[in-house]
Amino acid sequence: MAMTEVETLFRLATLNTNYANCIDADRLEDWPSLFHERCIYKITTAENQRRGYAAGIVFADSRAMLTDRVAALREANIYERQSYRHIVGLPAVRHSEAGEIAAQTAFLVVRIMHDGRMDLFATGVYLDRVSDDPDGKLRFAERTVVCDSSRFDTLLAIPL
Amino acid sequence: MAMTEVETLFRLATLNTNYANCIDADRLEDWPSLFHERCIYKITTAENQRRGYAAGIVFADSRAMLTDRVAALREANIYERQSYRHIVGLPAVRHSEAGEIAAQTAFLVVRIMHDGRMDLFATGVYLDRVSDDPDGKLRFAERTVVCDSSRFDTLLAIPL
Amino acid sequence: MAMTEVETLFRLATLNTNYANCIDADRLEDWPSLFHERCIYKITTAENQRRGYAAGIVFADSRAMLTDRVAALREANIYERQSYRHIVGLPAVRHSEAGEIAAQTAFLVVRIMHDGRMDLFATGVYLDRVSDDPDGKLRFAERTVVCDSSRFDTLLAIPL
Repeated sequence: MAMTEVETLFRLATLNTNYANCIDADRLEDWPSLFHERCIYKITTAENQRRGYAAGIVFADSRAMLTDRVAALREANIYERQSYRHIVGLPAVRHSEAGEIAAQTAFLVVRIMHDGRMDLFATGVYLDRVSDDPDGKLRFAERTVVCDSSRFDTLLAIPL
Repeated sequence: MAMTEVETLFRLATLNTNYANCIDADRLEDWPSLFHERCIYKITTAENQRRGYAAGIVFADSRAMLTDRVAALREANIYERQSYRHIVGLPAVRHSEAGEIAAQTAFLVVRIMHDGRMDLFATGVYLDRVSDDPDGKLRFAERTVVCDSSRFDTLLAIPL
Repeated sequence: MAMTEVETLFRLATLNTNYANCIDADRLEDWPSLFHERCIYKITTAENQRRGYAAGIVFADSRAMLTDRVAALREANIYERQSYRHIVGLPAVRHSEAGEIAAQTAFLVVRIMHDGRMDLFATGVYLDRVSDDPDGKLRFAERTVVCDSSRFDTLLAIPL
């Protein structure tokens, strides 16, 4: 085993940790910076994936769209009433080519309501493509969030 | 700290990730290949372990038995109606001797029903013995799944 | 990336795993040894943190207090009736200076009642300061357990 594999895993895991911390600590404004300017962010379900449906529940294809999304969330003021906690597994590298790494990572999100109630909000797998930006910082070229359950809270608006 | 400890942890964690992915992505047919041909796979409870009961809820002592188990599951067709999501902690190496590593890892499994309902299905700890096969691939010589709860779904048939 | 970052993460993660195993395997007597003799252990809520309230739900400022706490728990005999399972994320190093590392780690705790019922007991983030003792063993100088929910079981007595 080359040490480089360990380093890759370390860098992917750190990116995942930063991602989760942005959301869970309500630093949503920092969240788009984890993506390249041209990127894909998509939320879909395992069933849609299996059936080959391209359409997701959420779709964005640029960092600017992610920033708009956060601004809209702040305006709607939904987020204040609840918080989230991501528990994220270790990434599995699927392949790596020409500076781009494809990886997948299991996740679980707990939602904590303002009155203290907690519930299991979502589980699933992140399907990612990541690469370095010109400064050597690892960012998402794509994050597809595949939720295990097809049942969604209609208020789903928070990044997963 | 020797670098070799980091590498060992990395290899164990990768084996765990592959294990979880086989089950959660419904690639059950690949699951037995993570074990040596002669192996032990056992599901038991913390209470049984404490009392020293050898009998588990599930017991297999060869890869062939695991393969049979998967075939039976496919025939029974139970699995199609639900899916699972494993969230697995980092392994703790307990000892390492003569090419065999004993490790333990905490796990949590969420079950997702066909209608979208999710529930906390099982938590516990994996007690593992792993070693390289002749090709240098790490496999389970033993995986004992110790579930925290003694209450079981009578349909428990899916690998944990 | 320096290899030393990977090693630091490995050591932090191992400390976290030992911490969780002490509690989940009911080896509470070993738990205080993960802290320096002079240390801070505190349980608080995200809301209290945001409001700047120093007071926590639990507070101890020495290893001796942690040992007393465990003795009291054993006497009260509450612990026997339930067990816990920690699922802990990867640590994120926040800064590192003069031999002390500040890190944070997401956690989730499931409670398993004696009759087998499981519930999502707590989620949150550990805010830690760790450093080596004179023998080069990493220990907690501070662990502040910030729970996401403000609703607490009045019997909260177990370390989180």
